[in-house]
Amino acid sequence: MARKTKPTSDRPTLVDVAREAGVSAITVSRTIRSPEIVSERARQKVEEAIRRLGYTPDPAASALASRSTSTIGLLVPSLTNNVFSDVLRGVYEGVAGTRYFVQIGNYRYSALEEEGLIRNFLSQRPAGLIVSSMDQTPAGRKLLETAACPVVQIMETSDDAVDMSVGFDQLAGVRVAAQHLLDCGFRRPGFLSARMDPRAQRRLGAFRDFAAEAGVLDENRIITTPQPSSVGLGGHLLEQLLARMPDTDSVLCNNDDLAVGALMEATRRNIAVPGELGICSYNDIEMSRHMVPALTAVATPRHAIGRRAIDMLLAEIAKPNSVTERHVDLGYELMVRETTCRKA
Amino acid sequence: MARKTKPTSDRPTLVDVAREAGVSAITVSRTIRSPEIVSERARQKVEEAIRRLGYTPDPAASALASRSTSTIGLLVPSLTNNVFSDVLRGVYEGVAGTRYFVQIGNYRYSALEEEGLIRNFLSQRPAGLIVSSMDQTPAGRKLLETAACPVVQIMETSDDAVDMSVGFDQLAGVRVAAQHLLDCGFRRPGFLSARMDPRAQRRLGAFRDFAAEAGVLDENRIITTPQPSSVGLGGHLLEQLLARMPDTDSVLCNNDDLAVGALMEATRRNIAVPGELGICSYNDIEMSRHMVPALTAVATPRHAIGRRAIDMLLAEIAKPNSVTERHVDLGYELMVRETTCRKA
Repeated sequence: MARKTKPTSDRPTLVDVAREAGVSAITVSRTIRSPEIVSERARQKVEEAIRRLGYTPDPAASALASRSTSTIGLLVPSLTNNVFSDVLRGVYEGVAGTRYFVQIGNYRYSALEEEGLIRNFLSQRPAGLIVSSMDQTPAGRKLLETAACPVVQIMETSDDAVDMSVGFDQLAGVRVAAQHLLDCGFRRPGFLSARMDPRAQRRLGAFRDFAAEAGVLDENRIITTPQPSSVGLGGHLLEQLLARMPDTDSVLCNNDDLAVGALMEATRRNIAVPGELGICSYNDIEMSRHMVPALTAVATPRHAIGRRAIDMLLAEIAKPNSVTERHVDLGYELMVRETTCRKA
Repeated sequence: MARKTKPTSDRPTLVDVAREAGVSAITVSRTIRSPEIVSERARQKVEEAIRRLGYTPDPAASALASRSTSTIGLLVPSLTNNVFSDVLRGVYEGVAGTRYFVQIGNYRYSALEEEGLIRNFLSQRPAGLIVSSMDQTPAGRKLLETAACPVVQIMETSDDAVDMSVGFDQLAGVRVAAQHLLDCGFRRPGFLSARMDPRAQRRLGAFRDFAAEAGVLDENRIITTPQPSSVGLGGHLLEQLLARMPDTDSVLCNNDDLAVGALMEATRRNIAVPGELGICSYNDIEMSRHMVPALTAVATPRHAIGRRAIDMLLAEIAKPNSVTERHVDLGYELMVRETTCRKA
């Protein structure tokens, strides 16, 4: 109602907190920076005073003094499907009870935006950074290489990572899914993919190579679009595929949104799944197993990646160079369910 | 492979950038802080040098000099369904092309975590803050009231907001949905809700009040759980409801995950929707309209809220007290689709 007035000079200072708590200013400062060296009783008094006054430490003074903050930066390419929210769940589990806060930057599959965000996060002297790809711009990569904090790259794993990496073999996951379709007796598989970021393109490449080797590659059955992925788009892509190649007997979808959309489109057209059309998904977010019929999918270890990444990062923050296994492959699992299992 | 060495002393300085760009240090400083007063040519040289060297401004010096950063903080209670990713989309549209970066904090429906994140974000002197509720702890509220930057509270709208607010009438949305079920001839409506945060509780309260007034309230048809929402949970809650009250003829779900789960559970049991069971959802995230049958839902203006919030925030950052309409109600819309429309 009334406009907020924000007189910077009225902000409570460290001295105000000390007065309110009945302790010295240095005790307040220690409580903020090194609570472990302050008595429990003093710490409680200071924390209560901080809360009562709504005190926030002066960031500039703080950063100058300690050269690092309690912020963990986490860069993700998307928050519009649940893939990265599962990673986040693992990260939050790992920071619970520590003095660290997670701040998230979403670069929306743009390497340039990612570069800008890396610069922005690093300018705040984070305690550590988790980034979701290996595909930085050269300048972005250089920023990570010269960062004054540990860095974990996630989703893939590579000795070529800047510092540490946690992920799984994205391409082997695709091959296992395609092999599963062949094992179920499908012979004319298609591939649906949206938002062709570098990782999506590598997965398509893996499908292509596998299908060529198995003698089932038909470029007309590969339907991709640069548009962002969505459930509705999955339906449209299947529609296009079936219009072009009506004898397609199965489809590997590059993520769950597309697979759910393809399944709904098949249901709408009374195409029997898996009798007339097999559907296999990639990632296996929560909703996939609850569809009717339940979706077969390559389950990627998103939660475990988030958890392991934060654990490695915190260990490295606590003691530089203490993490010995710096590149971790967490594997994947083919979840065979109803959308591919034909009696045949 | 090789461990990254991070010699802080090797970080390029402003003077290194000036040397690389062939300009004075003050020009570099101006390019970073006030690019509009630097010639286009000098600016380009400096920006190239910054990228080549991987330079990041010293945050402490920067913050001391300017007293604010280019960070917009955005606090959300969840990233596990697509509700807040739609808000984010609007926010990102609004910051595109500006000098601001968005950093996201996820407080996972915990007011205490929210308070901690508010303190953490404010300690970095953000240019502005967007927070997703009116339900802060008293200390959290106090931090927002004394923040040295503009604040927009989103999802609801209230004159009691700390500074500015953008949202819609959450309770009227519930009443419209319940009225729609009655209009379609349903007489024994149930209500499914997970994660009973304060807003979910207020929506349940609105359903209860409406149903009581309409003479259709039966407490046995209200199924809630503190568990986080998911598609699978929607199926379980419907299962519980039908086990307890098999004659329930319709159900209002407090979000889309639950509604999709309830719809799949009904499909699995061969319960005709809407013939034997009407289903109405709340929020209307993208997947709901693509289900078979398509879900009726109260569409909440999530994208528009994000966009309006960032526009108000940027206007207020540029010129304090320039935003005249400080509390904005963006309305909602009932999307009538197949899961409620009976011939009867």
